Amino acid sequence: MKYPKYKKELEYSYVLGTTLVFELLQNRASDAIKIIYSSKLHQELLDKLMTVCHKYQVPLELDDKNVNYLSDKENCYVIGVCKKTYLELNDSNHLLLVNPSNAGNLGTIIRTAMGFNIKNIAVITPCVDLYDPKTIRASMGAIFRMNVSLYNSLEEYLRYHSKHTLYPFMLKAQVSLQELKEVKKPYTLVFGNEATGLPDSYLEQGIPVVIKHTKQIDSLNLQTAVSVAVYEFTKIGGDYFD
Amino acid sequence: MKYPKYKKELEYSYVLGTTLVFELLQNRASDAIKIIYSSKLHQELLDKLMTVCHKYQVPLELDDKNVNYLSDKENCYVIGVCKKTYLELNDSNHLLLVNPSNAGNLGTIIRTAMGFNIKNIAVITPCVDLYDPKTIRASMGAIFRMNVSLYNSLEEYLRYHSKHTLYPFMLKAQVSLQELKEVKKPYTLVFGNEATGLPDSYLEQGIPVVIKHTKQIDSLNLQTAVSVAVYEFTKIGGDYFD
Repeated sequence: MKYPKYKKELEYSYVLGTTLVFELLQNRASDAIKIIYSSKLHQELLDKLMTVCHKYQVPLELDDKNVNYLSDKENCYVIGVCKKTYLELNDSNHLLLVNPSNAGNLGTIIRTAMGFNIKNIAVITPCVDLYDPKTIRASMGAIFRMNVSLYNSLEEYLRYHSKHTLYPFMLKAQVSLQELKEVKKPYTLVFGNEATGLPDSYLEQGIPVVIKHTKQIDSLNLQTAVSVAVYEFTKIGGDYFD
Repeated sequence: MKYPKYKKELEYSYVLGTTLVFELLQNRASDAIKIIYSSKLHQELLDKLMTVCHKYQVPLELDDKNVNYLSDKENCYVIGVCKKTYLELNDSNHLLLVNPSNAGNLGTIIRTAMGFNIKNIAVITPCVDLYDPKTIRASMGAIFRMNVSLYNSLEEYLRYHSKHTLYPFMLKAQVSLQELKEVKKPYTLVFGNEATGLPDSYLEQGIPVVIKHTKQIDSLNLQTAVSVAVYEFTKIGGDYFD
């Protein structure tokens, strides 16, 4: 079978490059459909790949043409074909993204969240394709260790996670992150779309929070806001990662 | 005169789009060499542009061909031609970037720093072109309100700013940002290159700091690290921005 160029409608996605493919195999081997590689792959890496694929019973196939076709301008010699899996969130802290629209940003946010001990991300549709190869790439594989779930609305999310305290991040909030002294666990940090933020209706939800900044800028970008929030919440919450 | 496509070697850069051009004119009009616009520009915006250009005595010229040629795929109807100016840093807090290599990242970092009241950025060469149109764009104009200076080495920087306490951010540091209780002002927050971080020699400088994160990721990306650091330093330092 020849795999076509990636598009959102496909039921599988592509994982480009050796490092990411190993992340896939080691963390979510059951989602790996097949690994294809080019004859330019270094023998040492191929040996390692064969061992890991054998261990997890994932098909491995030499296919220069398809690898070349899919890898675009990037010089990549290994491509993983993987299922787009959404996992149930557990009861610890969540990040909730409402209508995120940028694939690269989303990947970086997944990685940052993982770095601050957030292991569950809820996303409200419509949203960017979570399994866009750009998202996978920007997450540096963290997406394979994260529980990610899609919801059609806030109401649907709340039906499943009523015990979480919502902290919507919005410019109109009264409480500033800088003044926050305690956090209620489990919490859900809520962020809006990159361009539009959260709608005003979120002011009625949980404890809205603003990250105070100077008037020299209109707003912090999404990635910055999420970074600062997950840092501060894990700090206030006393989560240490030694 | 027809302006050529941007390249690093040019003595001027381009500011694309109405919003950014107004940022340039309002904050650094003396660096604006000329504004060119296309006949597609909305009359209302043109009127406003004429008023501001007249106020600051900046030449304004209709040039459909050149605007079209320079604006690439972006649909932009106004382009500012600006000098690449480096301004002396003042004695308040600094951000020091050692060999940054990504133009877009740098722009976002400039904007974030400005959002947390850092108005001085020192950059040690070699580094990405600070006036790359991508940097200007990503800074959303904050670059025109920031003092940015280039230095050939840390030694050169220190000769001019010996009163600043250096806080190099590095994984090998002993003190964690999460435990930090006070900061010595004026401070300089120091960050290395996106891929390689700071060399070990920076462990001998000032007070090295690590932002603790989980072992699930190798490191935080530069933009995340800077965001968290400037947030925490202005918070500990008691800087409020009402």
